[in-house]
Amino acid sequence: MSEFKIRTSGRIALADITAEVEAAAARAGVRAGLCNVFVRHTTAAVIIAENADPDVSADLLAHLERLVPRDGGFRHGEGNAQAHILSVMLGVSLNVPIEEGRLRLGRWQGVMLAEFDGPRERTVAVSVVPA
Amino acid sequence: MSEFKIRTSGRIALADITAEVEAAAARAGVRAGLCNVFVRHTTAAVIIAENADPDVSADLLAHLERLVPRDGGFRHGEGNAQAHILSVMLGVSLNVPIEEGRLRLGRWQGVMLAEFDGPRERTVAVSVVPA
Amino acid sequence: MSEFKIRTSGRIALADITAEVEAAAARAGVRAGLCNVFVRHTTAAVIIAENADPDVSADLLAHLERLVPRDGGFRHGEGNAQAHILSVMLGVSLNVPIEEGRLRLGRWQGVMLAEFDGPRERTVAVSVVPA
Repeated sequence: MSEFKIRTSGRIALADITAEVEAAAARAGVRAGLCNVFVRHTTAAVIIAENADPDVSADLLAHLERLVPRDGGFRHGEGNAQAHILSVMLGVSLNVPIEEGRLRLGRWQGVMLAEFDGPRERTVAVSVVPA
Repeated sequence: MSEFKIRTSGRIALADITAEVEAAAARAGVRAGLCNVFVRHTTAAVIIAENADPDVSADLLAHLERLVPRDGGFRHGEGNAQAHILSVMLGVSLNVPIEEGRLRLGRWQGVMLAEFDGPRERTVAVSVVPA
Repeated sequence: MSEFKIRTSGRIALADITAEVEAAAARAGVRAGLCNVFVRHTTAAVIIAENADPDVSADLLAHLERLVPRDGGFRHGEGNAQAHILSVMLGVSLNVPIEEGRLRLGRWQGVMLAEFDGPRERTVAVSVVPA
């Protein structure tokens, strides 16, 4: 397992971490297997989404805020219940296949850290298991 | 890793791919481990759901369209922002345990490709890692 | 792979299963790798969420019931369509990195079984694959 840190850019924001994950997977030296990407936080998530058109990211984040409003009458005292709920809904762990030592993502897919309570520094763990 | 293709039946539809995934896992020859199912697309997802009562699928798809309406005032120009958002919410990657060379699904569980921008041909990648 | 059973406490409820998953992972004797947690049910899910403040769990469950109401005009005859939909949205399978023989969760993260059609006894499968 290896880790890297990433600084997120806003309260709610996406950060494309495909290159960092790819580099961590390459360092593991596994030709074929699975690469797990895991965020150790309860107010962020890790997703795979289109990384070409910025409108896709904007639509996604705006709609997530409609589904889980920031001011949703929540009990949790820190004011970030929205972030906790979105973290659970999108998930903190995902796996990408590795083939010939590289992530086998689709052409339009990128690995993104989804920030819901930023900006702040986040830690991402990358684990690789061989086939 | 191996791949198979599946033709989806509608704009929004589920395709039961349990048999195809089971066959791909069996070809890998692993007695115990994990089977990862991954779709290389940003407008589809892979889920585990009940595959017995078709009403369950109908309820699921209808409710997802209520949560993320097709005409949600989105910016993305291709008209399929709904599909991108549902792909992120449901996810493109999932793992099923393998025991005695077979998927260890529950009695009512099936692996489904969830199509949100079809009908079209989709590619599914199956990777198996040993315990 | 190993299994354990857990009795859930209500129709919709969270059960912290971190200790049980940790114990199952330790029994596997793997120093570094991935631990998969899988529920064999179509009306429950497995999530990672904050396990410190009970208000976070209460906010999460209350909001999930707003997003997917129990009485949503569903067709499925058993009255638990809500549970099926939430199971798909949150997912029945997740992976946690293992390092030095232990789950590498963040400080505030716990592994939870999310019950949507209880109370009842649920089976959780834990599989460990080495790095």
